Amino acid sequence: MQTVKHNINIHEVGLRDGLQIEKQLVPFEKKMGWINRLFASGIKKIQLGSFVHPVKVPQMSDTDRLFTDVLKSGKKPENVILSGLVLNEKGLDRGLACGVEMFCMGVSASNTHSVKNTGMSTTEALGRIITMAKRAVSESKRVQVSVQSAFGCGYEGLISKNQVIDIVKSYLDAGLLTISLADTAGYAFPEQVTDLFGAIIELDNNIEPACHFHDTFGTGIANCFTAYQAGVTCFESAFGGLGGCPFTRISSGNVCTEDLVYLFMRQGLADLPDLEKLIELTRDIGQHLGRELSGRLYKTGLPNILKGF
Amino acid sequence: MQTVKHNINIHEVGLRDGLQIEKQLVPFEKKMGWINRLFASGIKKIQLGSFVHPVKVPQMSDTDRLFTDVLKSGKKPENVILSGLVLNEKGLDRGLACGVEMFCMGVSASNTHSVKNTGMSTTEALGRIITMAKRAVSESKRVQVSVQSAFGCGYEGLISKNQVIDIVKSYLDAGLLTISLADTAGYAFPEQVTDLFGAIIELDNNIEPACHFHDTFGTGIANCFTAYQAGVTCFESAFGGLGGCPFTRISSGNVCTEDLVYLFMRQGLADLPDLEKLIELTRDIGQHLGRELSGRLYKTGLPNILKGF
Repeated sequence: MQTVKHNINIHEVGLRDGLQIEKQLVPFEKKMGWINRLFASGIKKIQLGSFVHPVKVPQMSDTDRLFTDVLKSGKKPENVILSGLVLNEKGLDRGLACGVEMFCMGVSASNTHSVKNTGMSTTEALGRIITMAKRAVSESKRVQVSVQSAFGCGYEGLISKNQVIDIVKSYLDAGLLTISLADTAGYAFPEQVTDLFGAIIELDNNIEPACHFHDTFGTGIANCFTAYQAGVTCFESAFGGLGGCPFTRISSGNVCTEDLVYLFMRQGLADLPDLEKLIELTRDIGQHLGRELSGRLYKTGLPNILKGF
Repeated sequence: MQTVKHNINIHEVGLRDGLQIEKQLVPFEKKMGWINRLFASGIKKIQLGSFVHPVKVPQMSDTDRLFTDVLKSGKKPENVILSGLVLNEKGLDRGLACGVEMFCMGVSASNTHSVKNTGMSTTEALGRIITMAKRAVSESKRVQVSVQSAFGCGYEGLISKNQVIDIVKSYLDAGLLTISLADTAGYAFPEQVTDLFGAIIELDNNIEPACHFHDTFGTGIANCFTAYQAGVTCFESAFGGLGGCPFTRISSGNVCTEDLVYLFMRQGLADLPDLEKLIELTRDIGQHLGRELSGRLYKTGLPNILKGF
């Protein structure tokens, strides 16, 4: 029985990775309402959107305004960090201008995925991302760098562990310690998660490991649990299990935030977001989108066992 | 990284726990076709149905005939075991008469669940089940005894670990070594799985531990993985993730067979059923039932990473 527990935090990426493939545009005011409800839930890291070309991903065209208005509203709790995903220098400029607190950026460990997604090889993209990350750091911003397709690629198949480790080493050499491994295609399985996170956590005592799993093949929650056991402290997930990457061949949802919080709650972890508030929010989101989402807890409600009967 | 692997087997319970809550009766011939496709997949334990009163669960009214006809057909591979669930002596008589090869029976660790389900307290039910199990053994049948609601109860909430262990000890004292812990309400979480299976495996070197998880709150696959790590060798699951127990307050599906086989395949286990054949079967079942099932793999298909690209 595992006895040593460590605190974790949830990085809610539903507004970005959850919504980016939704064809129906979510109105700005609706997003603002959801963000305020995320604040009320106690989630401490929220990704408001990405800085991509508005024609390419129209759903993300209000990202700048979301940052500006949320920060202006004064409703953001002090301990909450607002993150934004940037793909290039232009995005970084926009993010710096509108007040992003944590920049997320990364490269794909799969060269094919990298070329299709960015037009650059992994090596080219890595140099560019590190330069961007250093600029954000010099502007006193938090930065999280990631390795996409770290657990396999929809185009290339297996991705070697060394390829991932080499990218992580480049990040560490550049002084970038907050590092996320992303399972873009949903291929990760528990033993691989233990192995890969074990290897990167060994590289540097000060590394802050984050994970980003998609639940394409049903292993999402098991992967998160294994990542927790390996020492991962930050978990990227999306309300209702929304989302998917439009640039991989099979797209499927992120690990579901409420379901993940439920897991950690049952495991006895402290300082978690309010599960009931998250469930209510996802119900509203499901209603707005007009379809059933993949998440479990928003359908079952808070289990009796957590209500004390 | 986990290196010691042990073989497992899948006990397909879709025809019983999967179908028993389906209102629309599945025609006998359809069930026969699905059983033959399960044979072709290489699954080695298949539960054909339960011996309950046909008025109470009409979907199970053809159980006797399924056994008779499957055995008569000569299509069952030699290494496949056909199991049936019995709730009482009358069911046992019926099962003995039609050729059941492995009898499954059990008691609920929750007294309230036991009374609602059987009209007997856990203690009364335990005595009766052990007598029945001994009779089946004396008829040279395999027997699996179970503890239902072992991880919590929809009525009673928490179930003490000692309550479960005491039931398991009674089984072991009676020489019954094949023992399944069932998560009837879907409340199990990984640490509890490790803890409870760890405790019962310690009781007897010759115990054959099985698990039966429902994926009500999204922890099903993670629980199976943790059970595997604890040493569990038999996994009860249902095609497509069908099913649920009609006698608990929140009913939800079993762990999905194809998704579980996928997990174990990725983990590198040997001698697993044919995943493609299982996926095709579940597609047919989903089409027959006319709705989307909770399983993932039958929707995504075999992942590219397993196809060698």
